[in-house]
Amino acid sequence: MSTVTASSATTTRTQFVQARNETYAYRRFGSGPGSPLVCLQHFTGTLDNWDPAVTDRLALERDVILFDNAGVGRSTGTVPDTIDGMAAHALDFMDALGLDRCDVLGFSLGGMVAQRMARERPSIVRRMILVGTAPRGGEDIMRLEKPTLARHLSDPMLKGYAVLQKIFFAPTVSSQAAGGAFIERLAQRHEDRDTPSGSGVAAAQMAAFREWEQWTGARFGDLKAIHQPTLVVNGIHDEMIPVSNSYRLAEHLPNAVLLVYPDAGHGSLFQFHDSFTRHAEAFLASDSPFAPY
Amino acid sequence: MSTVTASSATTTRTQFVQARNETYAYRRFGSGPGSPLVCLQHFTGTLDNWDPAVTDRLALERDVILFDNAGVGRSTGTVPDTIDGMAAHALDFMDALGLDRCDVLGFSLGGMVAQRMARERPSIVRRMILVGTAPRGGEDIMRLEKPTLARHLSDPMLKGYAVLQKIFFAPTVSSQAAGGAFIERLAQRHEDRDTPSGSGVAAAQMAAFREWEQWTGARFGDLKAIHQPTLVVNGIHDEMIPVSNSYRLAEHLPNAVLLVYPDAGHGSLFQFHDSFTRHAEAFLASDSPFAPY
Repeated sequence: MSTVTASSATTTRTQFVQARNETYAYRRFGSGPGSPLVCLQHFTGTLDNWDPAVTDRLALERDVILFDNAGVGRSTGTVPDTIDGMAAHALDFMDALGLDRCDVLGFSLGGMVAQRMARERPSIVRRMILVGTAPRGGEDIMRLEKPTLARHLSDPMLKGYAVLQKIFFAPTVSSQAAGGAFIERLAQRHEDRDTPSGSGVAAAQMAAFREWEQWTGARFGDLKAIHQPTLVVNGIHDEMIPVSNSYRLAEHLPNAVLLVYPDAGHGSLFQFHDSFTRHAEAFLASDSPFAPY
Repeated sequence: MSTVTASSATTTRTQFVQARNETYAYRRFGSGPGSPLVCLQHFTGTLDNWDPAVTDRLALERDVILFDNAGVGRSTGTVPDTIDGMAAHALDFMDALGLDRCDVLGFSLGGMVAQRMARERPSIVRRMILVGTAPRGGEDIMRLEKPTLARHLSDPMLKGYAVLQKIFFAPTVSSQAAGGAFIERLAQRHEDRDTPSGSGVAAAQMAAFREWEQWTGARFGDLKAIHQPTLVVNGIHDEMIPVSNSYRLAEHLPNAVLLVYPDAGHGSLFQFHDSFTRHAEAFLASDSPFAPY
């Protein structure tokens, strides 16, 4: 007997929707009064990289929608080499589902896409959670060649999810233990799994990071135009997208609360999933025009 | 008919306790299962500077104890010119009340005193909330001569609490409105008011800020020894003790969650008192050894 219900990232079947130009793979589960929550994924991540401890809890009060951008997992098309291109696909996907207003959870790469969506079509985003991400013009974004990351990424003994335990979590006993629990939760899904990302996905997404580091005009100036209530979240020891980028988001977004976790890296939302989902639920449940919750 | 109960900063009578060297003025109110919460006040602030919207809400679940450090308000003695000296008085005060374990809310200057208490006698502090404050070696602490502050502090039209509306809140319509409501709440207490601080208090406390900016050895290194779960809070536009100091606290305290509010200055806890007290309650209610709540 399993206690997993249909409202779980672990068991929900993958669906496909034909949009303007592409067919996108997605999973939709949950119920409740909240706005649908569209989840935008990290570098090389697929539908199988969302932690059920986060998504299933959030699905108790709303539809949760996980989504493969173009060229990722089983979505058709080519991976864009700009964040703008990815945001256009995300909007196409939402149009295909008939979603004209939703909440957005953007993690890492997905948080950049979320910012572009909010700029491109402000009416579609009600509230936004940006985890482990950076504004355009951010610094030290996904420099996988730095020793703290490269030693894990080049380790032939680390296969599949195991590398995520190393690079998403801090090098402490407590954080690594949380990382171990995280990859066990990911491994619970056995059927209807997504196509893992290859080097082509990684190369295009890495190009998008490099382009995102460029800016024109006032640095971080475009954030002033994003008025949606926003919750910015990070781990204090994030080696992949350093926490300074979250500071800049909080300083330049006019309506953002910043929440930073100790003893945590890029995957702070997975390490502290109980706390993160409590904060996310309180933030998303608010109808205030102001971010504080 | 008043709806104010006895558990209110607005009406609770001031008490006095004879300690080792001095007699300290304090107010104690509230009830409930939580650890007593000792509140440590800001530059030149007295018992009358605590916002009842914050203290009364927190007093629903615990004793709240407001305290005048030596030489402030109606406490006897001389205002120390170091944070260490103030922490010694705070510990004397707690000894006199027979408190051997409590939670601490330290605001601004009070947050520095709280850090020293936690270092000096770790067993006495269970959980700690540090608002609008800085670590030893922090930067740009209480530079009242900078134009954004000096123009208000030197304005002869701003008397009493009115100056706090300007310097504790951001220069936006929304933040200033919250500041106006804050000083109205402070003004609700009519009887048994505290002695306002004069220039002697200000001079000694300012000397303590200058001393606190100095460090020896590794900058921020002493924070590593503070293991208590800590919640660090600030407004993103704090002109008095800039938010970068809160970033440094979160980066160097091993067990601290950082929460930063938008559209707010030094007085973020008063501006967003509903949100702040919700977060503070959740944080203080936790018995976890870890700060995330």
